[in-house]
Amino acid sequence: MKLSELYTKTSKSIPADESSNNARLLIQAGFIHKEMAGVYSYLPLGKIVLDKISQIIREEMNRIRALEVQMSTLQPKDIWEKTDRWDDKKVDNWFKTKLNSGQDLGIGLTHEEPIVDSMIGFINSYKDLPVYVYQIQNKFRNELRAKSGLLRGREFLMKDLYSFNLNEEEHHRYYEEVLGAYFKIYERLGLGKDTYRTYADGGIFSTSFSDEFQTLSDVGEDLIYLDEKKKIAINKEIYNAKNLNKIGLKESDLKPYKAIEVGNTFSLGSKYTDALDLYYTDKDGHQKSIIMGCYGIGVSRLMGVMAEKFSDNLGLVWPMTIAPAKIYLIAIGQDQKTLDKAQKLYNLLTQKSIDVIYDDRDVRIGEKFADADLLGVPIRAVISSKHGDQEIAVKRRTENNEKMMKYIDLINLSK
Amino acid sequence: MKLSELYTKTSKSIPADESSNNARLLIQAGFIHKEMAGVYSYLPLGKIVLDKISQIIREEMNRIRALEVQMSTLQPKDIWEKTDRWDDKKVDNWFKTKLNSGQDLGIGLTHEEPIVDSMIGFINSYKDLPVYVYQIQNKFRNELRAKSGLLRGREFLMKDLYSFNLNEEEHHRYYEEVLGAYFKIYERLGLGKDTYRTYADGGIFSTSFSDEFQTLSDVGEDLIYLDEKKKIAINKEIYNAKNLNKIGLKESDLKPYKAIEVGNTFSLGSKYTDALDLYYTDKDGHQKSIIMGCYGIGVSRLMGVMAEKFSDNLGLVWPMTIAPAKIYLIAIGQDQKTLDKAQKLYNLLTQKSIDVIYDDRDVRIGEKFADADLLGVPIRAVISSKHGDQEIAVKRRTENNEKMMKYIDLINLSK
Repeated sequence: MKLSELYTKTSKSIPADESSNNARLLIQAGFIHKEMAGVYSYLPLGKIVLDKISQIIREEMNRIRALEVQMSTLQPKDIWEKTDRWDDKKVDNWFKTKLNSGQDLGIGLTHEEPIVDSMIGFINSYKDLPVYVYQIQNKFRNELRAKSGLLRGREFLMKDLYSFNLNEEEHHRYYEEVLGAYFKIYERLGLGKDTYRTYADGGIFSTSFSDEFQTLSDVGEDLIYLDEKKKIAINKEIYNAKNLNKIGLKESDLKPYKAIEVGNTFSLGSKYTDALDLYYTDKDGHQKSIIMGCYGIGVSRLMGVMAEKFSDNLGLVWPMTIAPAKIYLIAIGQDQKTLDKAQKLYNLLTQKSIDVIYDDRDVRIGEKFADADLLGVPIRAVISSKHGDQEIAVKRRTENNEKMMKYIDLINLSK
Repeated sequence: MKLSELYTKTSKSIPADESSNNARLLIQAGFIHKEMAGVYSYLPLGKIVLDKISQIIREEMNRIRALEVQMSTLQPKDIWEKTDRWDDKKVDNWFKTKLNSGQDLGIGLTHEEPIVDSMIGFINSYKDLPVYVYQIQNKFRNELRAKSGLLRGREFLMKDLYSFNLNEEEHHRYYEEVLGAYFKIYERLGLGKDTYRTYADGGIFSTSFSDEFQTLSDVGEDLIYLDEKKKIAINKEIYNAKNLNKIGLKESDLKPYKAIEVGNTFSLGSKYTDALDLYYTDKDGHQKSIIMGCYGIGVSRLMGVMAEKFSDNLGLVWPMTIAPAKIYLIAIGQDQKTLDKAQKLYNLLTQKSIDVIYDDRDVRIGEKFADADLLGVPIRAVISSKHGDQEIAVKRRTENNEKMMKYIDLINLSK
C-alpha cells in the first residue's frame, strides 16, 4: 500500500473523551474510529490487523476439526426463555429491540441457545457426534461502563466455539485440545509468555469452575494469583483455601498480578442441550444427554491488549504476525533516481507478497520516521541516493540502530 | 472435506413455515438455518458459499482502489438527526435499542452518516480527495413482511461502498467505474447475461435517479421494462413518458420482465457531507462541498438469487466460482482397494487445493448421488473397482451423461 492512497492520517492530539491507552494509541495512529463509549469502527489499517488476528484464530480452530458457521445477531425470545436467560433480571446486559409487529427480539450477546437449536435435526444418534462449530462474529453487551477502549466493548468481535460430545470423558479430552489450541493462538500473537491458564468462576454459563486465559498487564481489570513454576493461576473471585486445595495450589507459591482476560472456556454439561430438547440415542436405543462446552476469545479485545502491551512512547509496536504491514519503506531525497529505486523495491516486495507500506508522501523525513514508529510497523527500510546498489538501511521497530543490508536480506527478514 | 466430518444433513421434507424456493432449497441442503422470518444463520456449507461471494466482491472493490473498513452496528442518534434520518416517521424500518443509561441507539440499517462522520479529521484539503471505502457487513431492517427467504432479510450481509470526490465530474467518472466493477462481479457469479442496469428512483438516499442492477427472475418483486438491444432497463416505479425521454428509451423497444434487484448505486451530491459538516479547501483556499456516492450489493441476497436461478427439481446447481466444493467424490463398493483409491484421489485433489467433498459415508449409492445433486456441486466424480488405473467416471451437475476420464483431466476440469 502506498501512503498517498490511504486516507487515514496519524494525529498528535490525544482524543479528550478517550481515557484508555489502547484506544488513544489506535485512534492517533488512524486504526480505529470511536462511535461512542465501547463502540469502535475499524479503519483500513485496523481492519487489516483485526483480520490477521481472526485468521490466526480461524486456522487453529480448523486444526481442531471445528467447522465455521455464522449465526444471526437478531434473536427470537422463545429459545432463551427455555434456558431462563431472557429476563433482564436473569441476564442484565441484553440489548433488546422489537419487530414492527411488536414481537420482542434480543441482540446476540452470546450464542449457546441458537447454536443448540440449529443442531436439532442434525444430531439424533451417537453416530452424529462429536460436533464442533465456531464463528467469528460481533457480540453486543449493554455494559454500564465502557471506559477501557477495546478491552470492554458494547459491540465487539468474538470467536466462539461450541462442542457437543457423547459423554463427559469425550468432552474433557476435547476441552484439553481446545486449551492447547488457545495456547498456540497466544503464542502466535506474541502473548504466549505472559498468558496463563487461570481457574475462575463459571459465571452465567455454568455452575462449576471455568478456565480463563489471563495476560499479565498493569491495565488489567482482573487480579490473579499466579504459581510461576506450575504456570497456573487462580482468579481472585474464587481465591479461598477450599478452592486452592481442590485445584492443588499452595498459597505460599502464589503471587498476585493484574491481568486481562483474553479467553475463557466453559464445561456446560447438558444444561443447554437438555433445556432445548437436544438428545441422542445410544447404541442400545436409549436416549442420552449431550455434553457441551463453549470457548470464547475476544478478537477485538486481543487487538486492544496488544496495543497496550506492544507499544512505547513513540507509538505501537506490532509483532510481525499481525502488523498491518511488515515493512515501512521510505525514500530519502526526491530525485528521480531515488524515487525509481524505491518504486522498484516496492514492486519487488509486493510481487513477493510481502506486505509493505510505501510512504510516498511529499512530507519531511522526520514526519515519515515518526509515522513509521506510531503505526508500529516492525521493519523500517530507508532508500537513499547515498546507498550502493541493492542496499538499504534497515531498522527494527524494537531496536535503536539502523543496519545496512542487501535487498535479499530484507526479504529474508520479512518472512 | 469428508462428509463424515460434516454434521449437517440433507433433508427430504420441505420446511412448513418457509414459502420461498431459495430458502427451502438451502435449508433442505443444510446450507442455512432459519431463526425467524427474514433472519437466517449460515451453516458450514452456506458459510463457504457466502465467503466465496464476498471474496469476489472484495477483489473487484480493491481493483477500483476502495479500502475495506468495518463500521459499527450500534449507532448513536446525534449523527442521524443531523441528516433528519433518525425519526421513525422519516425512516420507517429502523431497529432501535437503548443503553442501560436510557440513551437511544439505532441498529445499523445503512452507513452514510457514520462513514461521513469517520472522515472528519482525515478530509480537509483537495489533496485528501478522492476517498473510496467499503465494507462487507450485516445490515438490519425492520421489514413488515419477510417472506422471500434470503431475497429480503431483516438481517442480511451487504457490501456498501462510499465515494468522496472533489466535484460532480470526478464523481461521475468514478460512478461509471463502479458500474463496471458491478458488471464484472455479476459476470464472475454467472449472473452476467441476465443482469441489467436499470434506471430507478433515488429512494431515501437521493432525490434524483439511481441505478439498480436487476436480474431477471420469475420470483422477482420488481417489474422492469427492458430494451434488449441497448441492454438498459427502467423500473416500473419511474416508468413514464417524461422519464423515458430523459433516459433516451422508446416505449416500443421495451419489454416487461420480473426481476430481482441485486445492486444499487446512488449519486448523493453533497447532501450528507454538508449536513455533517465535512468540507474541503480548494487550491485557492475556498471551502467546497464534497460530492458523495453510495453503492450497495446484497451479498446474502445474491446467495438467494443464485439458489433461485441455479437450481432444478433435483436441487441446487452452483457455478464453479462459488460452489461449496468443485468436486463431489464417491466410491462405489466398500472393498479396501476401492476405498484406498478414493482416499488417494482425495489427498491428491486436496494437495492441489481443489475443494472436494468426499462422500465417505456408509450409505446407499443412490443416496450419495441424490445428495451430490441436492448440494449442487458442479462435478460428480465416481471411483469404482471396475475402472482402470487413474480412471474416473465424471458427470457435470448440468449434464445427464457420465464420461470416463483420467485423473489429470478431472483436475484440469476443476480449474
